[in-house]
Amino acid sequence: MSDPFVVVGADAAGLSAASKFRREAPDRDVVVFEKGRWISYAYCGMPYFIEGRVERMSNLLSLSPSDVDERGIDLRRGREVVAVDPDGKTVTVETTEGDTVEQAYGDLLVATGGRATTGPFDVEGVDGAFTLHDMDTAAAIDAYVAEPDAYDPGRADVSAVDRGRVERNAAMTAPETAAIVGGGYVGVEMAEALRGRGLDVHLFQRSSHLLPPFGEAVGERVADELDAKGVTVHAGTPVEELVGDDRIEGVAVGDGSGNRGDPLSVDLAIVGVGIRPNTELLEGTGVGLGEGGAIRTDEYGRTTLPDVYAAGDCATAIHAVTGEEAWMPLGLTANRAGRAVGSTVAGNRSPVGDIAGTAAVKAFDMEAGRVGLVEDKAAREAGFDPVRETVTAGSRSGYYPGASPTDVTLVADRDSGRVIGGSIVGPDRAAVRIDTLSTALEADMTVAEVERLDLAYAPPFSPVWDPVLVAAKVLNGTLDGD
Amino acid sequence: MSDPFVVVGADAAGLSAASKFRREAPDRDVVVFEKGRWISYAYCGMPYFIEGRVERMSNLLSLSPSDVDERGIDLRRGREVVAVDPDGKTVTVETTEGDTVEQAYGDLLVATGGRATTGPFDVEGVDGAFTLHDMDTAAAIDAYVAEPDAYDPGRADVSAVDRGRVERNAAMTAPETAAIVGGGYVGVEMAEALRGRGLDVHLFQRSSHLLPPFGEAVGERVADELDAKGVTVHAGTPVEELVGDDRIEGVAVGDGSGNRGDPLSVDLAIVGVGIRPNTELLEGTGVGLGEGGAIRTDEYGRTTLPDVYAAGDCATAIHAVTGEEAWMPLGLTANRAGRAVGSTVAGNRSPVGDIAGTAAVKAFDMEAGRVGLVEDKAAREAGFDPVRETVTAGSRSGYYPGASPTDVTLVADRDSGRVIGGSIVGPDRAAVRIDTLSTALEADMTVAEVERLDLAYAPPFSPVWDPVLVAAKVLNGTLDGD
Repeated sequence: MSDPFVVVGADAAGLSAASKFRREAPDRDVVVFEKGRWISYAYCGMPYFIEGRVERMSNLLSLSPSDVDERGIDLRRGREVVAVDPDGKTVTVETTEGDTVEQAYGDLLVATGGRATTGPFDVEGVDGAFTLHDMDTAAAIDAYVAEPDAYDPGRADVSAVDRGRVERNAAMTAPETAAIVGGGYVGVEMAEALRGRGLDVHLFQRSSHLLPPFGEAVGERVADELDAKGVTVHAGTPVEELVGDDRIEGVAVGDGSGNRGDPLSVDLAIVGVGIRPNTELLEGTGVGLGEGGAIRTDEYGRTTLPDVYAAGDCATAIHAVTGEEAWMPLGLTANRAGRAVGSTVAGNRSPVGDIAGTAAVKAFDMEAGRVGLVEDKAAREAGFDPVRETVTAGSRSGYYPGASPTDVTLVADRDSGRVIGGSIVGPDRAAVRIDTLSTALEADMTVAEVERLDLAYAPPFSPVWDPVLVAAKVLNGTLDGD
Repeated sequence: MSDPFVVVGADAAGLSAASKFRREAPDRDVVVFEKGRWISYAYCGMPYFIEGRVERMSNLLSLSPSDVDERGIDLRRGREVVAVDPDGKTVTVETTEGDTVEQAYGDLLVATGGRATTGPFDVEGVDGAFTLHDMDTAAAIDAYVAEPDAYDPGRADVSAVDRGRVERNAAMTAPETAAIVGGGYVGVEMAEALRGRGLDVHLFQRSSHLLPPFGEAVGERVADELDAKGVTVHAGTPVEELVGDDRIEGVAVGDGSGNRGDPLSVDLAIVGVGIRPNTELLEGTGVGLGEGGAIRTDEYGRTTLPDVYAAGDCATAIHAVTGEEAWMPLGLTANRAGRAVGSTVAGNRSPVGDIAGTAAVKAFDMEAGRVGLVEDKAAREAGFDPVRETVTAGSRSGYYPGASPTDVTLVADRDSGRVIGGSIVGPDRAAVRIDTLSTALEADMTVAEVERLDLAYAPPFSPVWDPVLVAAKVLNGTLDGD
């Protein structure tokens, strides 16, 4: 019997790999080490749990440990892989009790994910200040937001939960005013969630518009929507410091020109300023790191070490537009790469697939999607000469009730005419329309080709010229020098 | 001054061509002949007008005659082009008063559209029996459905309307029971419309499922939805005859085995069994006709006659999957081809674009889309060996409220693995998702390539694996012989 396929991390990438491997190589062993108690949880669902739209924390779990067990996967929770010896083909595993064991591997997948960065902010030990990147924090925020006598402990209905932390937060007076530091996905989604819980919500964004990777048109409409729903958006307003020692008291803000603005008193602060890849276990192995400090991988998810793979938020991927290495920690990328690695290790070589940076986000009744290189800076760095147009078109035939203005930004390379990026925002089916552009990008289509796409027309869903086609028409005119 | 660009027909294709030509060739004349009084109306919007969801008939007009005039287009209504002399480069034009004139052309576009076929049914002169393919009929049905004292004549607020016909229909007792003959788009949309007006609605479909070009999975879910909303669906039940001399009294039906079933008493019948292209004006010219008897055109919309183009419902197009001639009268095709011909005639050669047969339809709270070759018969006739899978996947993350079962059918060619067709049905954003498949089809993608598309994931809009990806995974497994 050969040494097992060892997987580090029991979330999207790790369990996708283990499950696929188990089906395709039923005679070989697979061992999954998970340092914590949580497995296979929906990170992206946490804001909706906190909002109360999702009733129970258990709703966010895809697989329970017993489900994993039934699949024939040897899952070992509370076991942290702290070192890898690529020559000896072993990993060093620490238990929560502090014991250390060596585990031999035939193939190794590092699927350790990422963790929230806090920038200059220290949330540790400050009650009411949080970063959101794990289920225990989600449970704690949910408990903290509720009045002590109104909290339903049945919401955090998963045995893995840090019950003590939940109870301590549930016992505190509920907050009334929240500051969210950072206007990315997490910030926007948390603004909606906390507003839904009745808080006075302030969203701070250092740069001039929200959701920078989605481009300005999306940022502005999302800001308008947040504003219309009662969230105070402070764009171009960096938070300089969290105020408060044991419990959060306020945020100190800059005015964007280096001077201090008026501080704001808050009793809840959520810091969402980014994530970084977890790569510590590979220190000293000489493994190649790439974009964002993530583990460099090739088209099959292989690292620079023999028989060592990486997938998910800790790994780089190949960008469909640039053909270059990129690091974009997103859910589908992790699932897909894990699944492909599981197949490859089982002997069925499977590419992990390019990424196009496709993403979607909801802000109250507004939807947005983005793909590829939307910002000029990113496009220029990749060697393109970006030309862009933003159009506003109807989501349905004009006479059909519910037709809503939909903004499409399309970015092309001037010389080749190739579509390299785009975004869509609007209240009516805007987000899923981005998949049209994702597919076009992955097929290396030009703007002229997109303009001639035969997209669906039906008055309740799309006008004769879908908003994507309108954008392509206008951008094509610009490229032609009309 | 050269002879003008003459356009026959002032609807989607004709006016798109004239408008584009006017912008790109400002120094040349363009003359548009329209045999009737109506121009530029939204055929696809008529069911929604009859339903009452669209309040005024004028809402369905994109351009008024004065709008067209302001664009510098010489529009002549009430002028029917009855013959074309391709050698002399003239057309013969009849006025409504019976006068005949000859008009020289430099280039000619035939954009005469199509008309509803009635099969074996004679609706002429039978009150309460209609086919739906023009605005006067839509106005008449709307008036007929209302009780005489409840009809609002302001609904038919367009001067072109046949006022006498509207008044005659408005004066009749309102119907209570409707038979719709034919379960295609028009039939399904009219079922919803008439149900919305409070009628007892029976929908008859000759074959075993509704919406045949959408495939069985769509047909079944749409039938279930109609049924749930109170429409009685009679599938596999051909209507043999309309009963009634001056006013409709009922429909005689077959049982599908050649025998007569029980007749049904109705006081409204709508026949929607197909359309056919209007090509009579080219009789005797030797012009090439193709699929469906439509005018054969090439990639620039050129017919087999010199300087004579055709576009819209009267013309063939090239199918993106088969590369062969096809006839699929749809709105975007007409607009797009007209626009391209206008540009080409102006000197800027522009391909009309392939068609993929992309279509979408709404039935109450159900949405569906289809593209390419969905039915086995069509695929085999085009030389493919079709392999198909139908999956049911969630429209959102399972924990997010509103996640709804979405059925995706994906059809591929066995040898090449190329995606050749597909359909999607479900209540939550299902229709616009078809555009992902349209784009993939036009890019000649394989199932494996579709499986690796980086589509948007966000819990409120799509699960990690979009339903399209789930279908590709399953079909790819089938192709691999899993």
